[in-house]
Amino acid sequence: MHPALFHWKRLEQVVTEVLVQAGARHEHASLVAESLIHADLRGIESHGLARLPIYIQRIEAGLIELNDEPVVWKQEGATALVDGKNHLGAVVGVAALEEAIKLSRQMGIGLVGVRHSNHFGSCSYYAERAITEGKILIVLSNAPEAMAPTGGIRPFFGTNPIAAGIPAGEEPSFLLDMATSVAARGKIALAVKKGESIPADWAIDANGKETTDPTKALLGSLLPIGGAKGYGLAMFIDILCGLLTGAATGPHVKSLYDNWHDPQNVGHLFLTVDIERFMPLPDFCANMDAYIREVKSVPRKEGVSDIFIPGEIESRKKLERMENGIPFDPNLTKELSQLCRTYGVDLQAACYLP
Amino acid sequence: MHPALFHWKRLEQVVTEVLVQAGARHEHASLVAESLIHADLRGIESHGLARLPIYIQRIEAGLIELNDEPVVWKQEGATALVDGKNHLGAVVGVAALEEAIKLSRQMGIGLVGVRHSNHFGSCSYYAERAITEGKILIVLSNAPEAMAPTGGIRPFFGTNPIAAGIPAGEEPSFLLDMATSVAARGKIALAVKKGESIPADWAIDANGKETTDPTKALLGSLLPIGGAKGYGLAMFIDILCGLLTGAATGPHVKSLYDNWHDPQNVGHLFLTVDIERFMPLPDFCANMDAYIREVKSVPRKEGVSDIFIPGEIESRKKLERMENGIPFDPNLTKELSQLCRTYGVDLQAACYLP
Ligand SMILES: NC(=O)c1ccc[n+]([C@@H]2O[C@H](COP(=O)([O-])OP(=O)(O)OC[C@H]3O[C@@H](n4cnc5c(N)ncnc54)[C@H](O)[C@@H]3O)[C@@H](O)[C@H]2O)c1
Ligand SMILES: NC(=O)c1ccc[n+]([C@@H]2O[C@H](COP(=O)([O-])OP(=O)(O)OC[C@H]3O[C@@H](n4cnc5c(N)ncnc54)[C@H](O)[C@@H]3O)[C@@H](O)[C@H]2O)c1
Repeated sequence: MHPALFHWKRLEQVVTEVLVQAGARHEHASLVAESLIHADLRGIESHGLARLPIYIQRIEAGLIELNDEPVVWKQEGATALVDGKNHLGAVVGVAALEEAIKLSRQMGIGLVGVRHSNHFGSCSYYAERAITEGKILIVLSNAPEAMAPTGGIRPFFGTNPIAAGIPAGEEPSFLLDMATSVAARGKIALAVKKGESIPADWAIDANGKETTDPTKALLGSLLPIGGAKGYGLAMFIDILCGLLTGAATGPHVKSLYDNWHDPQNVGHLFLTVDIERFMPLPDFCANMDAYIREVKSVPRKEGVSDIFIPGEIESRKKLERMENGIPFDPNLTKELSQLCRTYGVDLQAACYLP
Repeated sequence: MHPALFHWKRLEQVVTEVLVQAGARHEHASLVAESLIHADLRGIESHGLARLPIYIQRIEAGLIELNDEPVVWKQEGATALVDGKNHLGAVVGVAALEEAIKLSRQMGIGLVGVRHSNHFGSCSYYAERAITEGKILIVLSNAPEAMAPTGGIRPFFGTNPIAAGIPAGEEPSFLLDMATSVAARGKIALAVKKGESIPADWAIDANGKETTDPTKALLGSLLPIGGAKGYGLAMFIDILCGLLTGAATGPHVKSLYDNWHDPQNVGHLFLTVDIERFMPLPDFCANMDAYIREVKSVPRKEGVSDIFIPGEIESRKKLERMENGIPFDPNLTKELSQLCRTYGVDLQAACYLP
């Protein structure tokens, strides 16, 4: 079966309406819709509308709070804490991002820790917003257990992502957005489905042995990038997002999928830098352009057409999908169809016609 | 031949004296001595006194400026720039660290960029100092070209390190300190000497092919951790340390060893967080202790005696070497002997006797 094609802007309206029908206020709903479709536009399907059904199920189960607002707390100097009040992750994330940007305007830098949040999607969403405002952003999040510490054999840390956004001028801006694991759990699940083996550096089995068998890998633990270095990065992120903010840490961050008793209590950290404190923004962007051109002109390996800046592959895909529609695989389309039907919303309205 | 054993504190005095004789002011000399011996104590021999001879050679060649002081500049809100004035890297680094700590006391966080610096040794030195003051530190530095961007075959980025220090209570504090390359160049040079092959994920040859031949690797490019993820991290560090501060970037950072015309113009970034803005320090340290115990109690792989916290292996080594002396291999001992003789300093005085 062919994938169905959707028009990103109309899809945003449809998804907003679903979330409103599920109980979200319009502004919150449209923000969450935007953040999920942002991921689909950039080709990060794992963090796009594929997550909408589970968000809705947790709302229906009363595990996400829609009738409260994230609260800024302990604001002093250039730092603040945000209590997400267990709202949808993107709503909490944007509240924290806006506070961080405000602080960086006043103080040159803003650091905002977040507790009581939920899965907040792809970090690139926040980085892109900060870039649009001419700010540098570093954003971290912890996540449910998936990786063992080096030497250990049981998952403890999440695939705790880190993203960094830095504006440029005419060249693509820098947008690094990465899990601290070598590969995402979703890729391993996919290999099981397809009956394929996986590279030996993706995961260990339940005894701690590297494995190419994805079924054994799912019973074991994901491997961090760079061995103990990635373990260190994941732990660092967990401490800043969880311990410093008062959110959950390690295995206490509740699963989005498997825990039906408790809120997730995810923690995040947002750090924004006002470039103007160091040099005028136009100068910085011009320097970035020259620098990026230099990186892109490094001699290439045979068969490599281009050196890409982090985030560039995804922003090209975004432009292409804004133009030509977002393809969804038939399973996801079916799931979304059913969800829309339940909430009396017309998914058809979002179909893409050239 | 057996390694010679040195007493760390007396060695600091000897090295301080050598640097003073080479023209450094006493307080600067003792700081650089401390930072180098800190690395030797922690078993990071690549960044210890093995670097003293090249520091001295660059001083003698007039490529490091000893008669000036790093200057704090553009201080406003929670950010500042430090112009290192081409002083020894550790002198510049500590000036920037102290400014960052001061800012974080006032504003909750301090961000200090640095230009016109030199090789500043092991990042762990600064992290340990921040931990002693109860602060969280993130420190970044760029470095001379060693790694290609993904798809490229010529070195462009340094092995740009990132370190993070976070205090704990009774448990070992968290001290992650890592190059963004899979392995250090020094390890590859060592394999050449020993006639050994290297793992395939350490480096590519001059054509961009992965290689297990260390000689070919040295003519090629080091590989970053996690593929494009490590490339992104190295580039991110280069932009923050170099582009934002006005220091050199990419291949414009001059080699410590091969360039005898120009100052290095290394850039760094120091970011400190005052934990007290989030919770009382004793509470945080108690939470860290509980958290660390939890990490350390994850079930272990067969044959693994302990799960270590990042930095723990090195701090254990430090205690052991403070107690039992620091061993130096005969080549290094000889080099240091000669250096001391040239400057009329008695290395013998630093010998360790149980
Ligand atoms: N919210 C959560 O709990 C959570 C947890 C983990 C991951 N995530 C998200 O999952 C998404 C996917 O993460 P991932 O680690 O699988 O990403 P990835 O491995 O696909 O990409 C990582 C980074 O490398 C860059 N990149 C990849 N190939 C490149 C090339 N050839 N040249 C230059 N740059 C290149 C990408 O632009 C990106 O910045 C991210 O959006 C992340 O935020 C979220
Ligand atoms: N100044 C510069 O230009 C420059 C450039 C590159 C590197 N460096 C320095 O080089 C030094 C070495 O870097 P590296 O990347 O080779 O370090 P490494 O690979 O030896 O260690 C990296 C980190 O992993 C931790 N670690 C290692 N094994 C572990 C285990 N089993 N369990 C838990 N943690 C473990 C270490 O404590 C350390 O924090 C660092 O001090 C770095 O600052 C400096």
